[in-house]
Amino acid sequence: MTDIATETVTKPATQPETVPGVREVPGLALTAALRAVVDGPYAGVRDRVRRTLTGPDFAYPEPGIGLAEHREQTMAKTRLLAAAGVGDRQHEDVGERIAAFKIVGLGDLSVMVKVGVQFGLFGGAIDRLGTAYHHERYLADVASVALPGCFAMSELGHGSDVKSLRTTATYDVEAREFVIDTPDENARKEWIGNAAVHGRAAVVFAQLETAGEGRGVHAFVVPIRDETGTPVPGVSITDCGPKMGLNGVDNGRLVFDHVRVPREALLDRYGQVAVDGAYSSPIESPGRRFFTTIGALVEGRVAVAAQAISVTEVGLTIATRYALRRRQFPTADGREQLLLDYTTHQRRLLPAIATTYGLEAAHAELVRRFAANLAEPTEGGQRTVESLAAGIKAYATWHNTETLDACRQCCGGKGYLWENRLPALLADSEIFQTFEGDNTVLAQLVVKGLLSGFAADFEDLDLVGLVKLVAGKAFNRLDPRTDHQALESDAGRLAAFQWREEHLVETLGQRMKKLVVDDHVDPAEALNRCMDHGLAAFTAHLERVILEAYQQYGGPEAPAVLGTLRALFALSALERGRAYFVEHGYLSAAQSRSVPGRVDALCRELRPYAASLVDGFGVPDELVAAPIAIR
Amino acid sequence: MTDIATETVTKPATQPETVPGVREVPGLALTAALRAVVDGPYAGVRDRVRRTLTGPDFAYPEPGIGLAEHREQTMAKTRLLAAAGVGDRQHEDVGERIAAFKIVGLGDLSVMVKVGVQFGLFGGAIDRLGTAYHHERYLADVASVALPGCFAMSELGHGSDVKSLRTTATYDVEAREFVIDTPDENARKEWIGNAAVHGRAAVVFAQLETAGEGRGVHAFVVPIRDETGTPVPGVSITDCGPKMGLNGVDNGRLVFDHVRVPREALLDRYGQVAVDGAYSSPIESPGRRFFTTIGALVEGRVAVAAQAISVTEVGLTIATRYALRRRQFPTADGREQLLLDYTTHQRRLLPAIATTYGLEAAHAELVRRFAANLAEPTEGGQRTVESLAAGIKAYATWHNTETLDACRQCCGGKGYLWENRLPALLADSEIFQTFEGDNTVLAQLVVKGLLSGFAADFEDLDLVGLVKLVAGKAFNRLDPRTDHQALESDAGRLAAFQWREEHLVETLGQRMKKLVVDDHVDPAEALNRCMDHGLAAFTAHLERVILEAYQQYGGPEAPAVLGTLRALFALSALERGRAYFVEHGYLSAAQSRSVPGRVDALCRELRPYAASLVDGFGVPDELVAAPIAIR
Repeated sequence: MTDIATETVTKPATQPETVPGVREVPGLALTAALRAVVDGPYAGVRDRVRRTLTGPDFAYPEPGIGLAEHREQTMAKTRLLAAAGVGDRQHEDVGERIAAFKIVGLGDLSVMVKVGVQFGLFGGAIDRLGTAYHHERYLADVASVALPGCFAMSELGHGSDVKSLRTTATYDVEAREFVIDTPDENARKEWIGNAAVHGRAAVVFAQLETAGEGRGVHAFVVPIRDETGTPVPGVSITDCGPKMGLNGVDNGRLVFDHVRVPREALLDRYGQVAVDGAYSSPIESPGRRFFTTIGALVEGRVAVAAQAISVTEVGLTIATRYALRRRQFPTADGREQLLLDYTTHQRRLLPAIATTYGLEAAHAELVRRFAANLAEPTEGGQRTVESLAAGIKAYATWHNTETLDACRQCCGGKGYLWENRLPALLADSEIFQTFEGDNTVLAQLVVKGLLSGFAADFEDLDLVGLVKLVAGKAFNRLDPRTDHQALESDAGRLAAFQWREEHLVETLGQRMKKLVVDDHVDPAEALNRCMDHGLAAFTAHLERVILEAYQQYGGPEAPAVLGTLRALFALSALERGRAYFVEHGYLSAAQSRSVPGRVDALCRELRPYAASLVDGFGVPDELVAAPIAIR
Repeated sequence: MTDIATETVTKPATQPETVPGVREVPGLALTAALRAVVDGPYAGVRDRVRRTLTGPDFAYPEPGIGLAEHREQTMAKTRLLAAAGVGDRQHEDVGERIAAFKIVGLGDLSVMVKVGVQFGLFGGAIDRLGTAYHHERYLADVASVALPGCFAMSELGHGSDVKSLRTTATYDVEAREFVIDTPDENARKEWIGNAAVHGRAAVVFAQLETAGEGRGVHAFVVPIRDETGTPVPGVSITDCGPKMGLNGVDNGRLVFDHVRVPREALLDRYGQVAVDGAYSSPIESPGRRFFTTIGALVEGRVAVAAQAISVTEVGLTIATRYALRRRQFPTADGREQLLLDYTTHQRRLLPAIATTYGLEAAHAELVRRFAANLAEPTEGGQRTVESLAAGIKAYATWHNTETLDACRQCCGGKGYLWENRLPALLADSEIFQTFEGDNTVLAQLVVKGLLSGFAADFEDLDLVGLVKLVAGKAFNRLDPRTDHQALESDAGRLAAFQWREEHLVETLGQRMKKLVVDDHVDPAEALNRCMDHGLAAFTAHLERVILEAYQQYGGPEAPAVLGTLRALFALSALERGRAYFVEHGYLSAAQSRSVPGRVDALCRELRPYAASLVDGFGVPDELVAAPIAIR
């Protein structure tokens, strides 16, 4: 791998075989080069949050800590982070805020979620859905945690299907108040972070009714506890109880019994109710208004996607360092072999590392587009951001769960000990696949966008509209194509990924069109029948997006090892998905057969750099914390 | 699916769409037919253990229970199971014992492991490695738990590589005693169940030295605590501390400082030390003796494989019942759709159910062969049993972890609540992939056996021997083959699986031979380089083994739905692995492209029977326990 050995990076021979007590300079140079790419324009804020999190107040909770104490510790740490400026929406740009949230994801994940609920969801809803009155009234108290709050969207009966929420907010003209009510058991707010203990207010999503007319889902700031911590009259709060992980977060259920809030409680950026009850909105179509409202909350997914990448990085750091220390079974020379010198071990860790760098690249691109679209919003820009956020969130959280399980297996029994952190990482992050949008539902949204060419709002699952678009669209019959260079170069691999995505989307469109137009199948059922095809299109799309971002990642100054990592990401994705390429003649059988050997070879090529590759993620030793991974 | 609708099973139209409060008779008939197949010849013992486990003494521990109390509860339940006759090696045949252990795996997994350590590992080692003296002296006390014991094999430095253990047992002729000693930190016994609190004795595996000569690994019964629970002089015990799961099991570390035990402490079935220190053994070759010793302990893997299947069944029961109750997103007729009517949901649960029935079939065949070989041992029989046990253990535990994660995702936030059981199932069973043999190491053993045609002892990783065998063997160059019926019938699918296995093993042999003979690559390194190919051969082998057993499963009386399940298992395995078939011309591109649609169709066909399919596993409602899955 001579192209990696530039003056700034180490050669294989000088890279230490085991993790040294003190990092050697050549390894450090590569590590520093990788960290510069990963931290990118946000190195300052990331380092600041790293310093805060590695302070003595942020020690991980003891195993077996009780629920009550864990929740108090988590709240205390949330306040400390607030004091350090994390999550202050009035004094931080969005890129900085997400960079800070991402670093918080390297530590205790209960703290990460509590921070996310308070500043991201609660504060974010007030910020994005409210107007000047709400900003002035609330945002400083949100940032200081003087007002701990909740984001009360999900209901027992409706988690994924927000449009069908059943909590009501009825305007009472005479009192100039909204009446917030939970009509039945299924409509209770469920799974609400910060609700069981600490929350004093909640942004409640409810069906607005005014002047006798339903106006769809709107958000309201509703007090839920008084200053003594007692629930206010009409609000019943119960505790969701112990969970698999994230037990430092006090999830609860909220039931509203005709709770009255003033007219100003409506977060009225996209819909206003006048004193006399007249409704107005800058967005005429109710569907459009709903999806604009939901779309304004996309930051949550952008943040969770970043944090899933962080969690994966911690797991890979632990497992890789252990694999560079632990030996098992003697080799020919009588010495026992390091775990990372086993092909099976390399194949578990190195492609995962390569994919994680790719996700960093794609996420950096997402943040860039997100910030640009906030500065200068366009419809197309917003849809791209929503699709990217949903897609990267789903891909990154699936990757995270799979990778952490592999990391645990790679550490054997040691990986099962609480002290070695992987148990908490696994238990805490398992739910990432579900929260901020169930991954399967998100994948469907992304596919629907691809099918319609993003002609509809992103979250709009209105199938009649989708089917009209599909029916009116000419899906190309792509000519059979072969590419003899498909595996050999960045350009060839990207072309292959582009072809696969296009082919899957076009054939999905043809199938949908045939089912709906020719066979008169109900549109929802048609989409349902094709969803396996749809998930393949989702994966193809995301892997193309990641590879494209990867090819730009770090710019011309990037260390050459990123090129090898990028090739490994592409070839291991090709390896998983190669049946499709060979079935459709894009790859010859011989090309396809060569893919696993190419993955093996790239793993061997990257093996000498493994220590630096995980150090490049920049997880502070204090946060790694696992005794098996401490140098 | 008309062929399923025999007189004993329900037709789709009469199968209730949602889980009823009371099971309907038609569903019951199918459930009963499936249960009869699954329980097989051990229905009596299984029902007896089910009755014990559903008693009031076996309520699941409260979440957040402290370590100490959890351990005491687990011990108390172990004693109750002993009182009910579970694990009594003197009054139970092996099939009954494994059937009982399998049912224990439907309940709290700490209890399952504690039971496994006491009766399976500790009792099993005394039974299989000891002789009449040991049986008379210990087995009754093991069965009654009057003598709680440990199985002290793994060391900090050596978990997978048992041959390299470093604890020593040196015979002192004058005292007629063995001196058990831990020479260094790496040799301490690690991760030993029952050691931290309850164990009074341990079967300790150590390098025997007598008359100045090393005789390899042997096992000794060593007291570790006196009757007051105090460690005996020379034995230091520490606690492994909190783990990801299984916290009812008191894992500990044992260090021996020149601990003396009488000559009779040696479990001397395969090696005896005379009073004067003379060593004798019925097995001349030391390597052979070692592998015979290890092979005698195969029952542990047989049991864990069964228990992993049980855990998967509990998870699938919970997720499937929830999917038959929970609705989300409206359909064309305005009603919201049941989760199990989504293709994506069907594809997550139904192929997993189909694979689980296949594992039941393969495991029943393993138990049959195991019992037969104990009754009438042959070398070939023993190797087959060891290979099957290792293979099914690895395949079933990987399947378990993957399936439980899918089940959790299928239950959304509800699946993350502790009360719904999936969190405990995930946390407790994650380590199944590692204990009783790391899955990757087991897969390598199976592949080595396939390569050598089982000419060597199963666990013998002596690569020089393997390479000699490989070098001397003619690996066939298989002619290209196509099979136009490969997807259409049981026979066609089995032929495809057989071809794939044979092709992978033959080409692996050719590669190994070329590397070692022509290219003079060190044999260990050659095997290492080919291990990805080896893992593919492992999967191909196991899937052939499962499919073969599946085709016999339940005999001619089996409900026809098992045929559909078997087809779904085969086609979903083909779907994952289809690249190999099309790359080698066994399937045409068009055949390969048709596989995903066939999987979809089989899922739709099985959908109406879903409730009965999981009821057929026979998990008592008291053990399901999850509120989202209770009828």
